[in-house]
Amino acid sequence: MHFMTALGAAWQRRNSLLCVGLDPDPSRFPVHLAGRPDAILEFCRGIVDATADLVCCFKPQIAYFAAQRAEDQLEALIAHIHEKHPGTPVILDAKRGDIGSTAEQYAVEAFERFRADAITVNPYMGRDSVEPYLAYPDKGVILLCRTSNPGGSDLQFLDVGGGEKLYERVARLVAEEWNASGNCGLVVGATFPDEIARVRALTGDMPLLVPGIGAQGGDIAATVAAGRTAAGTGLMINSSRAILYAGKGEDYADAARRTALETRDAINAHR
Amino acid sequence: MHFMTALGAAWQRRNSLLCVGLDPDPSRFPVHLAGRPDAILEFCRGIVDATADLVCCFKPQIAYFAAQRAEDQLEALIAHIHEKHPGTPVILDAKRGDIGSTAEQYAVEAFERFRADAITVNPYMGRDSVEPYLAYPDKGVILLCRTSNPGGSDLQFLDVGGGEKLYERVARLVAEEWNASGNCGLVVGATFPDEIARVRALTGDMPLLVPGIGAQGGDIAATVAAGRTAAGTGLMINSSRAILYAGKGEDYADAARRTALETRDAINAHR
Repeated sequence: MHFMTALGAAWQRRNSLLCVGLDPDPSRFPVHLAGRPDAILEFCRGIVDATADLVCCFKPQIAYFAAQRAEDQLEALIAHIHEKHPGTPVILDAKRGDIGSTAEQYAVEAFERFRADAITVNPYMGRDSVEPYLAYPDKGVILLCRTSNPGGSDLQFLDVGGGEKLYERVARLVAEEWNASGNCGLVVGATFPDEIARVRALTGDMPLLVPGIGAQGGDIAATVAAGRTAAGTGLMINSSRAILYAGKGEDYADAARRTALETRDAINAHR
Repeated sequence: MHFMTALGAAWQRRNSLLCVGLDPDPSRFPVHLAGRPDAILEFCRGIVDATADLVCCFKPQIAYFAAQRAEDQLEALIAHIHEKHPGTPVILDAKRGDIGSTAEQYAVEAFERFRADAITVNPYMGRDSVEPYLAYPDKGVILLCRTSNPGGSDLQFLDVGGGEKLYERVARLVAEEWNASGNCGLVVGATFPDEIARVRALTGDMPLLVPGIGAQGGDIAATVAAGRTAAGTGLMINSSRAILYAGKGEDYADAARRTALETRDAINAHR
């Protein structure tokens, strides 16, 4: 199924704009998982099974798996999501960005090896660095635009002419040129609601992946008000650490579910 | 040893500015390697052993390993370089870029898991996305500045004020702010010699990693003239495909050595 179709269906069926980010840090796992060779997979599977009916998508962050030599567990986790929770899109958060011939390899990694439905991509190297991902007609390609971290302003907020900021130019390039097949989205941080509104104005109904609520401090009401489409969707609002580490014990998945439910409902209260 | 110390020593001892890029594509391997489970490692080890005395560094491109589920072969390859060719710096070409907590994981991946001496990093997310790499005092951090691909101009050539281009701003940020520990370098494509000269003027003696000669068509004479320091060094001029696939048979490593030697000498003729 096309990523955009699956995402649209998940927004409706789950009545949720919540994306749960899967950033597994073994030093924060419950003690009963300590020392297990498949602890990362077990931990994430617990989170996924406890929250799948509350989310519009999952977003595993590949760095957390790569640092632990756990690519095999990432493969197994995504396969588990596809099998047990069909129709729940998986965004591989990898922020890749390289020349075309190398980007082809990264696309194989994300879409064929890991079987992700979408990938995050860095726009700094321009159009031909993005095309190999766009060439997969059913996959989503989510470009970094305005990121939620403090240094995001170092380049993204530079004026590139006529009062246009670099992040606005990226939004416009993606909306007007790179999105010819309708499979693009953008990353816009919740820490900058004014800029979410600006990106929404530039991109029509394009899906926006919004990190930065929860541990990073972004405001849910402002994010939803700035970013929702006329249909009350258009957003994948990510929370990772606040949900993953809501509990510290064997019942960590129940605690995660409670926090995910609260977060989903807090988002829905402002739609 | 500090990456910069090792690189400086390699420039002198090897009398070479050549960096051999390790982009293993199994579809282009000699037939005698076909079907071997460790074909990627074998192929790359052949290239490394045939060219190590001709290079100032090696640059494995992680995408080619990740697409083949061959992270274990990348680990073994870098371990081989450290063991058999000590003092030859290894740059992991990964072009990572993410918020600080995620960048910490990528730094663990590059420097602790793969034991690379340096990593390439994308500057789009700003300073705090780079700091976790800079925190490793002996490692090199090589920021994308002006890339060699056609789309490189989409963002990097935008005027960010007073006639300054985005890539120049990146060069200035790195030289004036991010390089406090002296472990930064920059990526500047050989396809743009005028811009190599501009980056050299902005960054003093900072090492520049220059892809784009060989298969991408960049000019060696113009690259060296534009980028060398007063000492006749300061450059890591990368060639990947032209060397890796110089031969198609069992003697591919000999063919790679001949091409590497010609390339090194062509570079030295203009120093």
